Amino acid sequence: MRYKIVLSYDGGGFCGWQSQPSGGSVQDAVERAVKSLTGETVRVVGSGRTDAGVHAIGQVAHFDTAKDVPEKTVVSGLNAYLPQTVRVLSASKTDSAFDVLRSVKKKTYMYLMYRGPQLPLLMGRALCVGDIDVASMQRAASELKGTHDFASFMASGGGAKTSTRTVFDARFKTDGNFIEFFITADGFLYNMVRIIVAQLLKVGEGRAVSIKDIMEKRDRTYAKEIAPAYGLYLYNVEYL
Amino acid sequence: MRYKIVLSYDGGGFCGWQSQPSGGSVQDAVERAVKSLTGETVRVVGSGRTDAGVHAIGQVAHFDTAKDVPEKTVVSGLNAYLPQTVRVLSASKTDSAFDVLRSVKKKTYMYLMYRGPQLPLLMGRALCVGDIDVASMQRAASELKGTHDFASFMASGGGAKTSTRTVFDARFKTDGNFIEFFITADGFLYNMVRIIVAQLLKVGEGRAVSIKDIMEKRDRTYAKEIAPAYGLYLYNVEYL
Repeated sequence: MRYKIVLSYDGGGFCGWQSQPSGGSVQDAVERAVKSLTGETVRVVGSGRTDAGVHAIGQVAHFDTAKDVPEKTVVSGLNAYLPQTVRVLSASKTDSAFDVLRSVKKKTYMYLMYRGPQLPLLMGRALCVGDIDVASMQRAASELKGTHDFASFMASGGGAKTSTRTVFDARFKTDGNFIEFFITADGFLYNMVRIIVAQLLKVGEGRAVSIKDIMEKRDRTYAKEIAPAYGLYLYNVEYL
Repeated sequence: MRYKIVLSYDGGGFCGWQSQPSGGSVQDAVERAVKSLTGETVRVVGSGRTDAGVHAIGQVAHFDTAKDVPEKTVVSGLNAYLPQTVRVLSASKTDSAFDVLRSVKKKTYMYLMYRGPQLPLLMGRALCVGDIDVASMQRAASELKGTHDFASFMASGGGAKTSTRTVFDARFKTDGNFIEFFITADGFLYNMVRIIVAQLLKVGEGRAVSIKDIMEKRDRTYAKEIAPAYGLYLYNVEYL
Protein backbone atom coordinates (compact mmCIF):
# COMPACT_ATOMS: atom_id res chain seq x y z
CA MET A 1 0.00 0.00 0.00
CA ARG A 2 1.40 3.40 -1.04
CA TYR A 3 0.22 6.62 0.59
CA LYS A 4 0.54 10.11 -0.87
CA ILE A 5 0.61 12.79 1.83
CA VAL A 6 0.55 16.60 1.61
CA LEU A 7 2.62 18.36 4.27
CA SER A 8 3.08 21.89 5.55
CA TYR A 9 6.01 22.87 7.74
CA ASP A 10 7.84 25.79 9.30
CA GLY A 11 11.36 25.16 8.02
CA GLY A 12 12.93 27.37 10.70
CA GLY A 13 13.40 24.55 13.18
CA PHE A 14 14.71 21.92 10.73
CA CYS A 15 17.96 21.27 8.91
CA GLY A 16 15.97 20.95 5.68
CA TRP A 17 13.90 18.14 4.19
CA GLN A 18 16.58 15.53 3.64
CA SER A 19 17.37 12.91 6.29
CA GLN A 20 20.48 13.68 8.36
CA PRO A 21 22.45 11.60 10.86
CA SER A 22 21.35 14.15 13.51
CA GLY A 23 17.71 13.23 12.84
CA GLY A 24 16.86 16.94 12.66
CA SER A 25 15.27 17.01 9.20
CA VAL A 26 11.61 17.08 8.22
CA GLN A 27 12.02 13.70 6.50
CA ASP A 28 13.40 12.20 9.75
CA ALA A 29 10.45 13.62 11.71
CA VAL A 30 7.90 12.15 9.25
CA GLU A 31 9.67 8.76 9.15
CA ARG A 32 9.62 8.61 12.97
CA ALA A 33 5.88 9.42 12.93
CA VAL A 34 5.18 6.67 10.35
CA LYS A 35 7.14 4.20 12.50
CA SER A 36 5.13 5.21 15.59
CA LEU A 37 1.86 4.80 13.65
CA THR A 38 2.55 1.58 11.71
CA GLY A 39 5.47 0.00 13.55
CA GLU A 40 7.34 -0.12 10.24
CA THR A 41 10.64 1.54 9.35
CA VAL A 42 9.96 3.14 5.99
CA ARG A 43 11.55 5.66 3.66
CA VAL A 44 9.30 8.71 3.16
CA VAL A 45 10.13 10.10 -0.29
CA GLY A 46 9.63 13.86 -0.79
CA SER A 47 8.88 15.67 -4.06
CA GLY A 48 12.10 17.60 -3.53
CA ARG A 49 14.62 18.65 -0.90
CA THR A 50 13.90 21.95 0.77
CA ASP A 51 16.96 23.56 2.38
CA ALA A 52 17.28 24.47 6.05
CA GLY A 53 14.93 27.37 6.80
CA VAL A 54 12.79 26.89 3.67
CA HIS A 55 9.10 26.48 4.46
CA ALA A 56 6.41 24.34 2.86
CA ILE A 57 2.78 25.20 2.27
CA GLY A 58 2.19 22.02 0.23
CA GLN A 59 5.11 19.58 0.12
CA VAL A 60 4.10 16.14 -1.22
CA ALA A 61 5.60 12.83 -0.11
CA HIS A 62 4.89 9.12 -0.47
CA PHE A 63 5.64 6.02 1.56
CA ASP A 64 4.84 2.33 1.33
CA THR A 65 3.48 0.23 4.16
CA ALA A 66 2.10 -3.29 4.59
CA LYS A 67 -0.69 -1.87 6.79
CA ASP A 68 -4.04 -0.80 5.37
CA VAL A 69 -4.69 2.34 7.40
CA PRO A 70 -7.77 4.51 6.62
CA GLU A 71 -6.73 7.84 5.02
CA LYS A 72 -8.23 9.91 7.86
CA THR A 73 -6.28 7.85 10.38
CA VAL A 74 -3.05 8.49 8.48
CA VAL A 75 -3.67 12.25 8.83
CA SER A 76 -4.69 12.23 12.50
CA GLY A 77 -2.22 9.50 13.48
CA LEU A 78 0.84 11.12 11.90
CA ASN A 79 -0.15 14.53 13.30
CA ALA A 80 -0.39 13.01 16.77
CA TYR A 81 3.28 11.93 16.55
CA LEU A 82 4.69 14.88 14.57
CA PRO A 83 5.97 18.09 16.17
CA GLN A 84 3.49 20.96 15.71
CA THR A 85 5.87 22.59 13.22
CA VAL A 86 4.97 19.86 10.70
CA ARG A 87 1.38 18.99 9.80
CA VAL A 88 -0.05 16.39 7.44
CA LEU A 89 -2.85 18.20 5.60
CA SER A 90 -4.19 15.21 3.66
CA ALA A 91 -3.43 11.60 2.80
CA SER A 92 -4.63 9.41 -0.04
CA LYS A 93 -4.10 5.79 -0.98
CA THR A 94 -2.35 5.26 -4.27
CA ASP A 95 -0.13 2.62 -5.87
CA SER A 96 3.42 2.20 -7.14
CA ALA A 97 2.51 3.87 -10.46
CA PHE A 98 2.53 7.12 -8.50
CA ASP A 99 5.94 8.47 -7.56
CA VAL A 100 6.34 11.90 -5.93
CA LEU A 101 9.55 12.49 -7.85
CA ARG A 102 8.85 10.97 -11.26
CA SER A 103 5.15 11.86 -11.57
CA VAL A 104 5.59 15.62 -10.97
CA LYS A 105 3.87 17.79 -13.57
CA LYS A 106 4.36 21.28 -12.08
CA LYS A 107 5.90 22.69 -8.98
CA THR A 108 5.35 26.18 -7.58
CA TYR A 109 7.57 28.07 -5.17
CA MET A 110 6.69 31.39 -3.53
CA TYR A 111 9.23 33.90 -2.27
CA LEU A 112 7.89 36.39 0.27
CA MET A 113 9.22 39.93 0.59
CA TYR A 114 8.08 42.80 2.78
CA ARG A 115 8.68 46.43 1.87
CA GLY A 116 9.67 47.98 5.18
CA PRO A 117 11.78 47.56 8.30
CA GLN A 118 12.61 44.14 9.71
CA LEU A 119 9.51 43.37 11.77
CA PRO A 120 9.58 40.88 14.66
CA LEU A 121 6.49 39.09 13.40
CA LEU A 122 8.10 38.48 9.99
CA MET A 123 11.39 37.13 11.35
CA GLY A 124 12.29 33.93 9.54
CA ARG A 125 9.21 34.32 7.33
CA ALA A 126 9.88 37.12 4.84
CA LEU A 127 12.79 39.09 3.39
CA CYS A 128 12.49 42.75 4.32
CA VAL A 129 13.36 44.95 1.37
CA GLY A 130 13.64 48.64 0.56
CA ASP A 131 11.63 50.57 -1.98
CA ILE A 132 12.08 48.14 -4.88
CA ASP A 133 10.43 48.56 -8.30
CA VAL A 134 8.12 45.57 -8.69
CA ALA A 135 7.11 46.45 -12.27
CA SER A 136 10.75 46.18 -13.42
CA MET A 137 11.11 42.91 -11.53
CA GLN A 138 7.99 41.56 -13.26
CA ARG A 139 9.42 42.47 -16.68
CA ALA A 140 12.68 40.69 -15.87
CA ALA A 141 10.87 37.68 -14.39
CA SER A 142 8.89 37.26 -17.62
CA GLU A 143 12.20 36.54 -19.38
CA LEU A 144 12.36 33.29 -17.44
CA LYS A 145 9.23 31.86 -19.05
CA GLY A 146 9.73 29.01 -21.48
CA THR A 147 12.28 26.24 -21.85
CA HIS A 148 15.83 27.40 -21.09
CA ASP A 149 19.16 26.20 -19.78
CA PHE A 150 19.16 27.62 -16.23
CA ALA A 151 22.80 26.71 -15.45
CA SER A 152 23.48 30.34 -14.40
CA PHE A 153 20.93 29.91 -11.62
CA MET A 154 22.09 26.51 -10.31
CA ALA A 155 24.23 25.97 -7.22
CA SER A 156 26.70 23.10 -7.30
CA GLY A 157 25.80 19.92 -5.46
CA GLY A 158 22.32 19.36 -6.87
CA GLY A 159 23.22 16.37 -9.02
CA ALA A 160 20.77 17.21 -11.82
CA LYS A 161 21.40 15.43 -15.15
CA THR A 162 20.43 18.48 -17.19
CA SER A 163 20.07 22.15 -16.32
CA THR A 164 17.26 22.70 -18.83
CA ARG A 165 13.87 23.36 -17.27
CA THR A 166 10.54 24.78 -18.44
CA VAL A 167 9.18 27.74 -16.49
CA PHE A 168 5.41 27.98 -16.99
CA ASP A 169 4.88 31.15 -14.99
CA ALA A 170 6.84 33.73 -12.99
CA ARG A 171 4.61 36.35 -11.42
CA PHE A 172 4.68 39.04 -8.74
CA LYS A 173 1.66 39.79 -6.57
CA THR A 174 1.56 42.68 -4.15
CA ASP A 175 -0.71 43.00 -1.15
CA GLY A 176 -0.06 46.19 0.79
CA ASN A 177 3.62 46.10 1.72
CA PHE A 178 3.90 42.38 0.98
CA ILE A 179 5.45 41.31 -2.32
CA GLU A 180 5.01 37.68 -3.32
CA PHE A 181 6.93 36.09 -6.18
CA PHE A 182 5.39 32.89 -7.56
CA ILE A 183 7.34 30.70 -9.97
CA THR A 184 5.96 27.53 -11.56
CA ALA A 185 8.10 25.06 -13.51
CA ASP A 186 8.36 21.39 -14.42
CA GLY A 187 11.21 21.24 -11.93
CA PHE A 188 13.86 23.37 -10.24
CA LEU A 189 17.65 23.16 -10.01
CA TYR A 190 19.49 23.32 -6.70
CA ASN A 191 18.93 26.80 -5.14
CA MET A 192 17.43 27.99 -8.44
CA VAL A 193 14.62 30.11 -6.98
CA ARG A 194 16.82 31.82 -4.37
CA ILE A 195 19.49 32.65 -7.00
CA ILE A 196 16.83 34.02 -9.38
CA VAL A 197 15.27 36.12 -6.59
CA ALA A 198 18.69 37.64 -5.78
CA GLN A 199 19.03 38.69 -9.45
CA LEU A 200 15.46 40.04 -9.58
CA LEU A 201 16.18 42.12 -6.46
CA LYS A 202 19.12 43.71 -8.31
CA VAL A 203 16.65 44.70 -11.03
CA GLY A 204 14.17 46.01 -8.45
CA GLU A 205 16.92 48.11 -6.85
CA GLY A 206 17.93 49.58 -10.24
CA ARG A 207 21.29 47.77 -10.34
CA ALA A 208 20.30 45.70 -13.41
CA VAL A 209 17.58 45.87 -16.05
CA SER A 210 17.38 42.29 -17.28
CA ILE A 211 18.22 38.76 -16.20
CA LYS A 212 18.06 37.24 -19.69
CA ASP A 213 21.72 38.16 -20.39
CA ILE A 214 22.79 36.29 -17.25
CA MET A 215 20.60 33.30 -18.13
CA GLU A 216 22.22 33.12 -21.57
CA LYS A 217 25.73 32.91 -20.04
CA ARG A 218 24.83 29.47 -18.61
CA ASP A 219 27.42 30.11 -15.93
CA ARG A 220 26.80 30.59 -12.19
CA THR A 221 29.78 32.93 -11.85
CA TYR A 222 27.51 35.65 -13.31
CA ALA A 223 24.90 35.17 -10.57
CA LYS A 224 26.75 34.59 -7.32
CA GLU A 225 24.21 36.11 -4.93
CA ILE A 226 21.53 34.05 -3.23
CA ALA A 227 18.41 35.26 -1.39
CA PRO A 228 17.94 33.97 2.19
CA ALA A 229 16.24 30.59 2.67
CA TYR A 230 13.65 31.89 5.14
CA GLY A 231 11.72 33.85 2.47
CA LEU A 232 11.14 30.72 0.36
CA TYR A 233 8.03 28.53 0.47
CA LEU A 234 7.42 25.31 -1.47
CA TYR A 235 3.90 26.35 -2.43
CA ASN A 236 2.45 23.30 -4.17
CA VAL A 237 3.22 20.32 -6.37
CA GLU A 238 0.90 19.17 -9.13
CA TYR A 239 0.81 15.63 -10.50
CA LEU A 240 -0.22 14.04 -13.76
CA MET B 1 13.79 65.11 27.56
CA ARG B 2 10.85 62.75 26.88
CA TYR B 3 10.87 60.32 23.96
CA LYS B 4 7.82 58.69 22.41
CA ILE B 5 8.66 55.38 20.73
CA VAL B 6 6.58 53.02 18.56
CA LEU B 7 7.34 49.34 19.04
CA SER B 8 6.50 46.07 17.33
CA TYR B 9 7.03 42.71 19.01
CA ASP B 10 6.38 39.00 18.75
CA GLY B 11 4.72 38.34 22.10
CA GLY B 12 5.42 34.60 21.91
CA GLY B 13 8.76 34.82 23.69
CA PHE B 14 7.75 37.25 26.43
CA CYS B 15 5.74 37.04 29.65
CA GLY B 16 3.74 40.07 28.49
CA TRP B 17 4.47 43.81 28.44
CA GLN B 18 4.64 44.48 32.17
CA SER B 19 7.95 44.30 34.04
CA GLN B 20 8.46 41.07 36.00
CA PRO B 21 11.07 40.04 38.58
CA SER B 22 12.23 37.44 36.01
CA GLY B 23 13.09 40.26 33.59
CA GLY B 24 11.30 38.34 30.83
CA SER B 25 8.82 41.04 29.79
CA VAL B 26 8.94 43.41 26.82
CA GLN B 27 9.11 46.38 29.21
CA ASP B 28 12.19 44.84 30.90
CA ALA B 29 13.85 44.31 27.50
CA VAL B 30 13.23 47.93 26.44
CA GLU B 31 14.40 49.33 29.79
CA ARG B 32 17.64 47.30 29.52
CA ALA B 33 18.16 48.70 26.01
CA VAL B 34 17.61 52.29 27.19
CA LYS B 35 20.11 51.70 30.00
CA SER B 36 22.67 50.35 27.50
CA LEU B 37 22.12 53.34 25.21
CA THR B 38 21.97 56.19 27.75
CA GLY B 39 23.52 54.74 30.89
CA GLU B 40 20.38 55.72 32.78
CA THR B 41 17.96 53.46 34.64
CA VAL B 42 14.55 54.64 33.47
CA ARG B 43 10.96 53.50 33.55
CA VAL B 44 9.57 52.89 30.05
CA VAL B 45 5.82 53.49 30.26
CA GLY B 46 3.65 51.57 27.79
CA SER B 47 0.24 52.59 26.43
CA GLY B 48 -1.15 49.41 27.93
CA ARG B 49 -0.15 46.00 29.19
CA THR B 50 -0.28 43.24 26.62
CA ASP B 51 -0.55 39.73 28.09
CA ALA B 52 1.93 36.91 27.53
CA GLY B 53 1.68 35.78 23.91
CA VAL B 54 -0.10 38.93 22.68
CA HIS B 55 1.72 40.63 19.80
CA ALA B 56 2.17 44.29 18.93
CA ILE B 57 2.21 45.89 15.51
CA GLY B 58 2.28 49.40 16.98
CA GLN B 59 2.66 49.60 20.78
CA VAL B 60 3.56 53.11 21.99
CA ALA B 61 5.77 53.89 24.99
CA HIS B 62 7.54 56.90 26.51
CA PHE B 63 10.59 57.41 28.71
CA ASP B 64 12.46 60.38 30.14
CA THR B 65 16.19 60.85 29.93
CA ALA B 66 18.69 63.60 30.71
CA LYS B 67 20.50 62.86 27.44
CA ASP B 68 19.63 64.65 24.20
CA VAL B 69 19.89 61.79 21.72
CA PRO B 70 18.96 62.35 18.04
CA GLU B 71 15.70 60.55 17.17
CA LYS B 72 17.37 58.36 14.53
CA THR B 73 19.98 57.28 17.06
CA VAL B 74 17.26 56.32 19.53
CA VAL B 75 15.80 53.96 16.88
CA SER B 76 19.10 52.42 15.75
CA GLY B 77 20.64 52.42 19.22
CA LEU B 78 17.74 50.69 20.98
CA ASN B 79 17.43 48.18 18.12
CA ALA B 80 21.12 47.35 18.48
CA TYR B 81 20.53 46.31 22.11
CA LEU B 82 17.04 44.79 21.80
CA PRO B 83 16.41 41.14 20.92
CA GLN B 84 15.22 40.75 17.30
CA THR B 85 11.74 39.88 18.57
CA VAL B 86 11.27 43.55 19.59
CA ARG B 87 11.89 46.45 17.19
CA VAL B 88 11.63 50.19 17.67
CA LEU B 89 9.92 51.47 14.50
CA SER B 90 10.18 55.18 15.25
CA ALA B 91 11.11 57.65 17.98
CA SER B 92 10.19 61.29 18.46
CA LYS B 93 11.11 63.92 21.01
CA THR B 94 8.20 65.23 23.03
CA ASP B 95 7.65 66.74 26.47
CA SER B 96 5.91 65.93 29.73
CA ALA B 97 2.57 67.15 28.34
CA PHE B 98 2.55 63.90 26.37
CA ASP B 99 1.75 60.76 28.35
CA VAL B 100 1.25 57.41 26.59
CA LEU B 101 -1.45 56.47 29.08
CA ARG B 102 -3.31 59.75 29.65
CA SER B 103 -3.07 61.21 26.14
CA VAL B 104 -4.58 58.18 24.34
CA LYS B 105 -7.39 59.09 21.95
CA LYS B 106 -8.04 55.72 20.27
CA LYS B 107 -6.60 52.27 20.46
CA THR B 108 -7.07 49.48 17.92
CA TYR B 109 -6.62 45.76 18.49
CA MET B 110 -6.71 43.12 15.76
CA TYR B 111 -7.62 39.49 16.32
CA LEU B 112 -6.43 37.12 13.60
CA MET B 113 -8.30 33.94 12.68
CA TYR B 114 -7.67 31.41 9.92
CA ARG B 115 -10.42 29.25 8.46
CA GLY B 116 -8.74 25.87 8.14
CA PRO B 117 -6.50 23.32 9.84
CA GLN B 118 -3.83 24.34 12.34
CA LEU B 119 -0.92 25.22 10.04
CA PRO B 120 2.70 25.21 11.25
CA LEU B 121 3.37 28.66 9.80
CA LEU B 122 0.45 30.16 11.76
CA MET B 123 1.40 28.62 15.12
CA GLY B 124 1.29 31.29 17.82
CA ARG B 125 0.08 33.83 15.25
CA ALA B 126 -3.57 33.05 14.44
CA LEU B 127 -6.51 31.12 15.85
CA CYS B 128 -7.53 28.34 13.46
CA VAL B 129 -11.30 28.12 13.19
CA GLY B 130 -13.91 26.02 11.40
CA ASP B 131 -16.46 27.20 8.88
CA ILE B 132 -17.72 30.20 10.88
CA ASP B 133 -20.31 32.68 9.58
CA VAL B 134 -18.51 36.02 9.40
CA ALA B 135 -21.64 37.99 8.36
CA SER B 136 -23.39 36.96 11.60
CA MET B 137 -20.27 37.86 13.57
CA GLN B 138 -20.19 41.29 11.92
CA ARG B 139 -23.85 41.88 12.87
CA ALA B 140 -23.13 40.95 16.50
CA ALA B 141 -19.91 43.00 16.57
CA SER B 142 -21.85 46.09 15.47
CA GLU B 143 -23.81 45.88 18.73
CA LEU B 144 -20.60 46.83 20.55
CA LYS B 145 -20.38 50.26 18.93
CA GLY B 146 -21.08 53.24 21.13
CA THR B 147 -20.65 53.96 24.83
CA HIS B 148 -21.53 50.98 27.02
CA ASP B 149 -20.72 49.34 30.31
CA PHE B 150 -18.51 46.41 29.21
CA ALA B 151 -18.35 44.72 32.65
CA SER B 152 -19.50 41.42 31.07
CA PHE B 153 -16.33 41.44 28.98
CA MET B 154 -13.85 42.33 31.73
CA ALA B 155 -11.58 39.87 33.54
CA SER B 156 -10.83 40.54 37.19
CA GLY B 157 -7.48 42.06 38.10
CA GLY B 158 -7.45 44.97 35.68
CA GLY B 159 -7.96 47.68 38.31
CA ALA B 160 -10.05 49.93 36.05
CA LYS B 161 -12.04 52.64 37.83
CA THR B 162 -15.01 52.28 35.51
CA SER B 163 -16.05 49.57 33.05
CA THR B 164 -17.66 52.06 30.64
CA ARG B 165 -15.84 52.47 27.35
CA THR B 166 -16.65 53.88 23.92
CA VAL B 167 -16.19 51.54 20.97
CA PHE B 168 -15.73 53.57 17.76
CA ASP B 169 -15.57 50.64 15.37
CA ALA B 170 -15.75 46.83 15.36
CA ARG B 171 -15.20 45.38 11.92
CA PHE B 172 -14.37 42.08 10.24
CA LYS B 173 -12.19 41.89 7.15
CA THR B 174 -11.61 38.69 5.22
CA ASP B 175 -8.72 37.93 2.92
CA GLY B 176 -8.89 34.42 1.50
CA ASN B 177 -9.06 32.10 4.51
CA PHE B 178 -7.86 34.81 6.89
CA ILE B 179 -10.43 36.57 9.05
CA GLU B 180 -9.30 39.75 10.82
CA PHE B 181 -11.34 41.42 13.53
CA PHE B 182 -10.47 45.07 14.19
CA ILE B 183 -11.85 46.86 17.23
CA THR B 184 -11.18 50.54 18.01
CA ALA B 185 -12.11 52.17 21.33
CA ASP B 186 -11.05 54.94 23.69
CA GLY B 187 -9.69 52.18 25.93
CA PHE B 188 -10.07 48.51 26.73
CA LEU B 189 -10.74 46.61 29.95
CA TYR B 190 -8.57 43.71 31.08
CA ASN B 191 -8.89 40.85 28.53
CA MET B 192 -11.84 42.67 26.91
CA VAL B 193 -10.97 41.87 23.28
CA ARG B 194 -10.27 38.19 23.91
CA ILE B 195 -13.54 37.78 25.86
CA ILE B 196 -15.49 39.57 23.10
CA VAL B 197 -13.86 37.41 20.40
CA ALA B 198 -14.86 34.23 22.29
CA GLN B 199 -18.49 35.43 22.29
CA LEU B 200 -18.35 36.43 18.61
CA LEU B 201 -17.03 32.95 17.76
CA LYS B 202 -20.12 31.47 19.45
CA VAL B 203 -22.22 33.59 17.08
CA GLY B 204 -20.12 32.53 14.09
CA GLU B 205 -20.60 28.88 15.04
CA GLY B 206 -24.38 29.32 15.34
CA ARG B 207 -24.42 28.84 19.12
CA ALA B 208 -25.64 32.42 19.74
CA VAL B 209 -27.20 35.19 17.61
CA SER B 210 -26.34 38.32 19.58
CA ILE B 211 -23.88 39.60 22.16
CA LYS B 212 -25.95 42.62 23.20
CA ASP B 213 -27.93 40.57 25.73
CA ILE B 214 -24.69 39.48 27.41
CA MET B 215 -23.32 43.03 27.37
CA GLU B 216 -26.50 44.25 29.10
CA LYS B 217 -26.04 41.76 31.96
CA ARG B 218 -22.88 43.66 33.03
CA ASP B 219 -21.68 40.43 34.58
CA ARG B 220 -18.70 38.35 33.48
CA THR B 221 -20.37 35.10 34.57
CA TYR B 222 -22.34 35.29 31.28
CA ALA B 223 -19.16 35.38 29.19
CA LYS B 224 -16.68 33.01 30.76
CA GLU B 225 -14.83 31.97 27.61
CA ILE B 226 -11.68 33.69 26.43
CA ALA B 227 -9.97 33.45 23.04
CA PRO B 228 -6.24 32.53 23.06
CA ALA B 229 -3.69 35.33 23.53
CA TYR B 230 -1.65 34.40 20.44
CA GLY B 231 -4.33 35.60 17.98
CA LEU B 232 -4.33 39.12 19.47
CA TYR B 233 -2.33 42.06 18.11
CA LEU B 234 -2.13 45.57 19.58
CA TYR B 235 -2.53 47.23 16.19
CA ASN B 236 -2.07 50.94 16.84
CA VAL B 237 -2.57 53.72 19.36
CA GLU B 238 -3.66 57.22 18.34
CA TYR B 239 -2.97 60.34 20.36
CA LEU B 240 -4.60 63.73 20.69
